[in-house]
Amino acid sequence: MKLIKGNIVYAPRLGELVTLEHGALLLDDGGAVRDILAAPPESCDAEAFDYGDALVMPSFADMHLHAPQYPMLGMGMDLPLIDWLNTYTFDTEARFADTDYARRVYRRLANDLITGGTTRVCMFSSLHTDATLILMEELERAGVTGCVGKVNMDRNSGDVLRETTEESKRETLRWLDECERFRHVRPILTPRFTPSCTDELMAWLGALAAERGLYVQSHLSENDGEIAWVKELHPDCAQYWETYEKYGLWKDHTIMAHCVHSDAREREALARHNVVVAHCADSNVNICSGVAPVRTMLREGVWVTLGSDIAGGAQLAMNQVVTASIRASKTLCIETGGALPFLTVDEAYYLGSTAGHRWFGADGGFAKGMPLHAIVVDDGAFAEPVRALTLRERFERSIYLMDKSAIRAVWSEGRKVVG
Amino acid sequence: MKLIKGNIVYAPRLGELVTLEHGALLLDDGGAVRDILAAPPESCDAEAFDYGDALVMPSFADMHLHAPQYPMLGMGMDLPLIDWLNTYTFDTEARFADTDYARRVYRRLANDLITGGTTRVCMFSSLHTDATLILMEELERAGVTGCVGKVNMDRNSGDVLRETTEESKRETLRWLDECERFRHVRPILTPRFTPSCTDELMAWLGALAAERGLYVQSHLSENDGEIAWVKELHPDCAQYWETYEKYGLWKDHTIMAHCVHSDAREREALARHNVVVAHCADSNVNICSGVAPVRTMLREGVWVTLGSDIAGGAQLAMNQVVTASIRASKTLCIETGGALPFLTVDEAYYLGSTAGHRWFGADGGFAKGMPLHAIVVDDGAFAEPVRALTLRERFERSIYLMDKSAIRAVWSEGRKVVG
Repeated sequence: MKLIKGNIVYAPRLGELVTLEHGALLLDDGGAVRDILAAPPESCDAEAFDYGDALVMPSFADMHLHAPQYPMLGMGMDLPLIDWLNTYTFDTEARFADTDYARRVYRRLANDLITGGTTRVCMFSSLHTDATLILMEELERAGVTGCVGKVNMDRNSGDVLRETTEESKRETLRWLDECERFRHVRPILTPRFTPSCTDELMAWLGALAAERGLYVQSHLSENDGEIAWVKELHPDCAQYWETYEKYGLWKDHTIMAHCVHSDAREREALARHNVVVAHCADSNVNICSGVAPVRTMLREGVWVTLGSDIAGGAQLAMNQVVTASIRASKTLCIETGGALPFLTVDEAYYLGSTAGHRWFGADGGFAKGMPLHAIVVDDGAFAEPVRALTLRERFERSIYLMDKSAIRAVWSEGRKVVG
Repeated sequence: MKLIKGNIVYAPRLGELVTLEHGALLLDDGGAVRDILAAPPESCDAEAFDYGDALVMPSFADMHLHAPQYPMLGMGMDLPLIDWLNTYTFDTEARFADTDYARRVYRRLANDLITGGTTRVCMFSSLHTDATLILMEELERAGVTGCVGKVNMDRNSGDVLRETTEESKRETLRWLDECERFRHVRPILTPRFTPSCTDELMAWLGALAAERGLYVQSHLSENDGEIAWVKELHPDCAQYWETYEKYGLWKDHTIMAHCVHSDAREREALARHNVVVAHCADSNVNICSGVAPVRTMLREGVWVTLGSDIAGGAQLAMNQVVTASIRASKTLCIETGGALPFLTVDEAYYLGSTAGHRWFGADGGFAKGMPLHAIVVDDGAFAEPVRALTLRERFERSIYLMDKSAIRAVWSEGRKVVG
């Protein structure tokens, strides 16, 4: 067994924060959480990890990001969406045909994710099978767990980044075969979005998802032009989400990034089918897509998680994604004269941590019986406060101010992978 | 003479960016910019500083921040303004009666400012004369230049943080006498805001400003409650700004933080009197004050600069303040359906750099004849791009991604103070 000592902080439910000063986590031999203790036992034959006065918190889960866009982080932010795609995105992703380049970038990305406290991801790769497998290798090596998707896109995707329907199917099957060697990173089916997949490919992916019990991720209702385009492509569907439903891709645990413009009917379909929203506040503001009505979604029982969405988002660090979602919600709060209350720091942390971990079956913060996913935050490096702070205050300050240098250790899937 | 070699980038005017690949800056013996060169001279008897492929850019000017609020950075962000002031702000500032504490915090703050590339500031201290002098000492020691104000507040400021009118006057004079020993940090008169200063004190400060040729800084139109309160206190004034004008405090170079709710008439008064707006996007969103209509101000000829406004703002790093102002402007752009175009990265950098340096008499980016204020940014640590980037692209990426570790050197007032 292992005993982790420190100040325990976690968000078991939306808007609820548990703080245990000088508490402890007891892990079994496999690294699963056996107990959460208000105080460490006097004697215990477990291997001890004493983090002293540091904060021990659930790690972050980044539920939407594009790995091959990492090289363009913070670029093209002043361009309209279509120019941004054509000037940067497609050319950048096309470069991942080069497996040496992919190896270098993905090793860097995996390292930056784990040292920044992100231990679970649902991630888009590019359409390249080999680069996707390299990405999965590098994530496993670094200790990042979760799901990665080889992207499917057999139409409307420019000259540099195209696969035929046949290639897309064949490569998807080759990729899935190769995925069996990974322990902590699993495949997820990833039609890029409705406009970039033929009906034939969508139907094939839907059947494959059902046949193999695979989860699905894609994009939904990010901006108005895209929504109108989808309507043109699928005149038989009243709404965007139905283009996924039509082919069996709209189902329990399907992840839909953005949902900025999802109206009441589309949100109802999200809630009813247990489809998960990956809210990407920074990206949605950067590309001027809009601000998703997260408060409304939460009131309606929609399952909301957070995504960095690099490189529409310019921030990989999930604590910054959490504060970006707070700030975006505050602009909606201002705009609606308070009718849509902003996300509190407790709520936004819940979305960026617990709500994402729940997707992987680990609910409630430090989920008993599930392998530990945690960060250890040393806030001693922040400016000296005027008085002793409560653990709640230290938590808030850490969410706003932490960077890699404040993250002293990271535990992923029950193993210490940083520190 | 000194010769600084590197990739030269600066924003001479709003929306204009000059990029000189492998250019140089020639400084005279006093550290003033003598020439900006598209290529270094073949031979030159100047002392050379070769920054290789790094970017050499004008440093940042933070035109509004509260030094004694540094210990509460990133805390209380979910509270309404008045609770935030009462729970955190006043208690925090009161702690600066302790000069040992002030020394420790201000040394840290000055170091964090300069290593983050902020070389000029207009800063609020607390009401404490001794702590204010310590702050000025620590800024000078670190190489941060600019203006600092002992805060005047003789009413409506709670129990822990109060001075009588007589104390306020006497301490202001003592402080001004002591300021003569500083070379690079100067005093600026700082009535906290209209509600916290009696008419007598305001009138006295206005007369003092005129008599000694001192500049003035304060707050204006941050939120609706405050505006209504000012109206109650000064029923004779049609608008908030007139409460400053009445006492001679509304004049050329007066800095007014926020101006979130300044309407066309108030903005016209800003432009006409050459009063400078310190736009504090992060703070205004955090405290749900609103988003200042910067695009409108710029169209109307108002002089806009940027402020971190710690600790209403939670980001001291001015590159983050620049991107926060871009993001805030994008929410206005979204809200107005594009009628208020967002701030481009070139424009926002201009506001956070050139527009602030101009307040100190150094216009146009690298102002010839003025001491050099520059940062040297090493973007080699960012993820490997898919192709060689233009200098313009490297500039944008640096603004979004730089942190202290990417800032290789800082020059302030013609001297190398970091690196």
